[in-house]
Order: sequence, then structure tokens, then C-alpha cells
Amino acid sequence: MSRYWSDIVQRLTPYTPGEQPALAHPVKLNANENPYPPSPRVLDAIREELGATGDSLRRYPDATARRLREAVAAHHGIRPEQVFAGNGSDEVLALVFQALLKHAHPILFPDVTYSFYPTYARLYEVEYRTVPLDADFTLRLDGYAIPNGGVLFPNPNAPTGRPLSLAEIERFVAANTESVVVIDEAYVDFGAESAVSLIDRYPQLLVVQTVSKARSLAGMRIGLAFGDPLLLDALNRVKDSFNSYPLDRLAQAAATAAYEDGEWFRDTCAKVIASRTRLSAGLSTLGFEVVPSAANFVLARHRAHDAATLAAQLKEREIFVRHFKLPRVDQHLRISIGTDAECDALLDALHDVLAV
Amino acid sequence: MSRYWSDIVQRLTPYTPGEQPALAHPVKLNANENPYPPSPRVLDAIREELGATGDSLRRYPDATARRLREAVAAHHGIRPEQVFAGNGSDEVLALVFQALLKHAHPILFPDVTYSFYPTYARLYEVEYRTVPLDADFTLRLDGYAIPNGGVLFPNPNAPTGRPLSLAEIERFVAANTESVVVIDEAYVDFGAESAVSLIDRYPQLLVVQTVSKARSLAGMRIGLAFGDPLLLDALNRVKDSFNSYPLDRLAQAAATAAYEDGEWFRDTCAKVIASRTRLSAGLSTLGFEVVPSAANFVLARHRAHDAATLAAQLKEREIFVRHFKLPRVDQHLRISIGTDAECDALLDALHDVLAV
Repeated sequence: MSRYWSDIVQRLTPYTPGEQPALAHPVKLNANENPYPPSPRVLDAIREELGATGDSLRRYPDATARRLREAVAAHHGIRPEQVFAGNGSDEVLALVFQALLKHAHPILFPDVTYSFYPTYARLYEVEYRTVPLDADFTLRLDGYAIPNGGVLFPNPNAPTGRPLSLAEIERFVAANTESVVVIDEAYVDFGAESAVSLIDRYPQLLVVQTVSKARSLAGMRIGLAFGDPLLLDALNRVKDSFNSYPLDRLAQAAATAAYEDGEWFRDTCAKVIASRTRLSAGLSTLGFEVVPSAANFVLARHRAHDAATLAAQLKEREIFVRHFKLPRVDQHLRISIGTDAECDALLDALHDVLAV
Repeated sequence: MSRYWSDIVQRLTPYTPGEQPALAHPVKLNANENPYPPSPRVLDAIREELGATGDSLRRYPDATARRLREAVAAHHGIRPEQVFAGNGSDEVLALVFQALLKHAHPILFPDVTYSFYPTYARLYEVEYRTVPLDADFTLRLDGYAIPNGGVLFPNPNAPTGRPLSLAEIERFVAANTESVVVIDEAYVDFGAESAVSLIDRYPQLLVVQTVSKARSLAGMRIGLAFGDPLLLDALNRVKDSFNSYPLDRLAQAAATAAYEDGEWFRDTCAKVIASRTRLSAGLSTLGFEVVPSAANFVLARHRAHDAATLAAQLKEREIFVRHFKLPRVDQHLRISIGTDAECDALLDALHDVLAV
């Protein structure tokens, strides 16, 4: 605390990201990172941008990320004018809070969801109300059919992994015409249905995605938003009042190449989905209840063991999973899907720990 | 305009960055980019981070940019705890407006200065007053010795290029104890004195720098702030409420290497300074009044020709300089220092244009 701080700083509760252990070979299943490397084309594109001397790095990047937006638009069958790019989907969501979610009514999001949402709301002084998930963590959109300044939810939801169907989503969006509906699709490629196909028909729909997860580029920080150009105009106006050049040259080159390699993307997702099925079965055998997941993680609760204790015991074995000290999920572990070898290391360690 | 926009969006006046022409070989003297490539060590560091497969890119970067802050601290002879890193100095300044400049009194900055400042102020609803420069664009700090919510100025100032001495700055900072003094040193390495040496003594002093200019990495987006850890704590709290990972892995590696190569940095600055002397003399010969500059650009006004017309005539010849339609400088051109060959191309073109 300091008299030099703006008032808002005193009221913030910063988000805590997953730990980045400084170990040589941790089994790192705590940040929903992809266990497989990015497409080889990503490496080629970065090398091409660098050239022999890195001379291009002295120039500002394209402030509008035009080539990236073209590649993304081609992948989704939409127009580049329907694509916005930012420095990770966290930055994109922050711009959304500022540009589209501050209105007379409070915004609505689930009680159990991405824990960054209330943090954004405090920073940008956006009023919010949470809508409880069902006991089994099902998200029911009926509960959001009340006056609101905006509706925001991940699909699949995090950290539960449960998806909503596109039909449910469209039914809700079609009725919610007075405010923006933001669907955070960070994990959609691992088994849920994207709502990008709806943006042509609903000017109040904004879809947020990331290049961090299914395309293995968490280290390069690229996030995307899809929607009516009038919604994106608001994001661009805030962006250009804050930081004209959020994406560096190598990030733009990397993400463009990742979108151009559809085969690598589909293969990677298929491997993660297969490992999720295998890991979920293994966890069930060990006495966990596993929430059915359409994401690259599972949320699991052991019938007899305390979650925080289990997480600490795994950490002693250099295996990292995520435990949230938050209502309703503080007896669960959120476990990212690793390679089968990493999942086996986790299952073996749990077998030891639970047997003691 | 849209009913889905937050109110603030309607009131924004986004910053307009220098044009990025889509030409094969423009003479680009409009964005204060460095005409020389980054240190060869930057390329090595990026290649090392990429490795054979780019596997590290699937992992989140270090949210605290520890290695970069250590390299920067070593260069300045300070502690890593006195260094903050963000996604370009524009992002750093945005965080400063939110975290440190919103108080009961308006903040103060020069009437002729970096035109992003009023844009930030509108976005974050920070009240401001401008203090006029002298007729010859000298900045006098006496005018800022009034109650204020913070004082912000570049040294050297932009787009004038005029520097303040460290003694003048220290005298002012020592007296301004009730609010933060922010010195934006984007161009300091081209001939002005840095105030980083003062941060140990003045807990109200924050210095902002960039890796874009003297270290030739505009394309990689890295900005820095230096100050008392309590001031940086405010920046970190806002950052971690907005985007935990603003700097990607390759940007961190590139900037770290750039700071580790002091010799390349000094050589590059010396070349730019020598070209500035040469270009200033050439412009004077052609009838321009050139403001004495300690930056990698000069602000110059022709005695007989309209500035906007000159800029347009140069653009026809694929030579890009910056013209601001702003009070007091709308008859000036801001010309970035290029290689001697680029400066000669500009002088030759001006010679033609002025002779017509």
C-alpha cells in the first residue's frame, strides 16, 4: 500500500496462474499446456521472419495482424474483418470487459468458472453476478435469462470441462438481444462445438479463442475474438487507446503458420482426446469421480482423500496438478492432459500415495 | 457506435501510429525505428530458445520475466526488484496511468509531447492539464510545481527531441514528494541523461524505457519501468489483474540478449548520433529550422514551405516522414534518423521538391 497508488490498486485481487516449477523434468499437468510441440511450420515461419540477421525485428509489427487474421478467417470460413487478435486470450478478455461489458445492469457468469473473470471485473469496475452451476456442474442457460449487462461463460466451462451444445447456445443467444454474449472457447477444440458459425447471424455474439492450447503456442501469447465488425470496432478502439502493437512479429508469424497447418492441429487434438479417455478411466479405477470433460483437462475428486493434501503429495514427487481454494471445487483436482507417459506417471504416483 | 459498446468506447480518440507502408524498399523515417539490426546475440538467443523443434513454445513464458529483469538490472547497476517489464513501453505507460496516476488532482504533462498521453487519460478517465513548452520548445519544470496527481514527461521530449539535464530533473523530483514523477525515456540513449540513477533516492520516481529504439527491437515489443519496488508492486497488481503473461518466450530471450551486448548498443547509438548531426546540417542548408535533438529523430520546419505538403511530396517519392496535425507543430516534420544513405535520399528528394 502506498499513497502513490491509484485507489483501484488497493481493491485488486490479482489472478494466480499455475506454478511454473524450475525443475529439469517436472510432470507439469497444472496449466493446461499442450503436451505436443507446435507444427513444424511454426518453426519455419519464425525462421523465415528472422532471416539471416533478424533485421525485420527493428521494425514495428503490423498493428492490425492482417496476415494472421486472414489465415484464421480462412480456417473458420469467415472474413478477416470478423477476427480480432490480441496478446493472449487473457488480454482479449480484458479488452472485452472494458469495451463491451460495462453497462447499467451487472454482467452474469457462472459461480464456478475461469477465476480471472472476477479479477477483470474488479479492475474495470464492472458489476457482476454469478449464476450457480447445477450440483453436477452442468451450466443451465435458463438462469441467465434475466436483465443483464452481458453474459460470459467458457465452453467447455473451466475448470469443470463440461460443454454446452451449439443448439442450447444458439437458443440462448437468439433470445438475449439486449446485451453481448461472450463465449470463451479456450478449450473448444478438444471436443466441444464452436459458436463461430453463429457470428454472421447474431451481432450480439462474441467468441473468444486462443492459440495457446490446441495449437501449442502458450509461450507465444496470441488470443482471438470473432464477431460482428461493430463489436470488434469497440475492441480495436480500446486496443488503440492502450497499445497499438500488442503482437510482435514472431508471434504473428508463429500463429499464422499454426493456423495454416490444419492436419497437425487435428492430429494433436485427437491424441489429447484419446489420452483424456485413458486418464479418466485410470482415475476412476483409483477411486476418483471424474467430471465428463470436453477440454484438455479433467476435474476429479477422490471419494476419500483431501484434494489439497493429494496435490501437495504429488508435488513432492515433482508432479504438478492444479488445486483451487475456491467454493465447490476445493475437494477437486484439475489435471491437464499430458502425454500417455505423463498421465501414467501421475497414475502411478497416485497409486502409491493412495495406498499409504 | 453500438448499444453493445461500453460508454467509455464512444469517448475514445485512439492513437494513430506511424504508417507502415506495404512497399518493397521505402525510405521509412516516420516511426523512429533504428536503421541498424539488433545485436547478433539476439538472433542466437531466439534460436536457442526455439531449439530443434520449438517444443518450449507450448509452455507459458515466465510471467515475471526474471532473466530479462536480471540482465537489465545488471546493465543499470540496480536490483531486479527495481525493474518491471511489459509488452512495449506503450503497455507499460498504460499500466502506469491505471496504477499510479489516478488521484484527486489532475496530472500534468507538456502541451507538445507524446500524443498517446491524452489517449491514455481518456481511456482510464484520468484528469489532466497540459503545461506549455516555451516558444523554442524548451520544457521548464517550474511550471509543474503546483498541486498535481502526477507529473509525466519524456526526456528527451517527443516530438521535439529536446532534453532536460539530470540536475534539473533531480531538483524537481526532490521537491515533488506528494505524487509520482514519471519520466518516459524512450529516446534517452541517443544523447540525454537517464534518471535511473536517482530511483534509489526518490520513492516517487518512475522511469520508463523501451527496448524498441536504441536496441533495435520495435518488432518484439518490450518496455521497462524502473523505480521503488512499492511503485512496481502497483504495476504488477494491475498487470496480474489484466494479463499475467504479457511477454512471450522469444521476446524475453531477445531483450535479454540485447541487454547483454553493451558494445553493439553503444556502437549503434554512436552511429545514429553521428547521422543526426549530418542530417541536421543538411536540413539547415535546405532552409529548415531544426530543433536541437538528443533523440533518434529531428523536428524541423521549413521557412517557406507547408509541412503537410512537403510530407505528401516525399511520400510520392516513397520517403515517409511524420507530420502531426497538432497545435504548434503542424508546420514541422518529425524525421527519424536513418542510415546515412537514407538521410541522403531524403535530402536529395527535398532538394528536388524545394527547387520546383
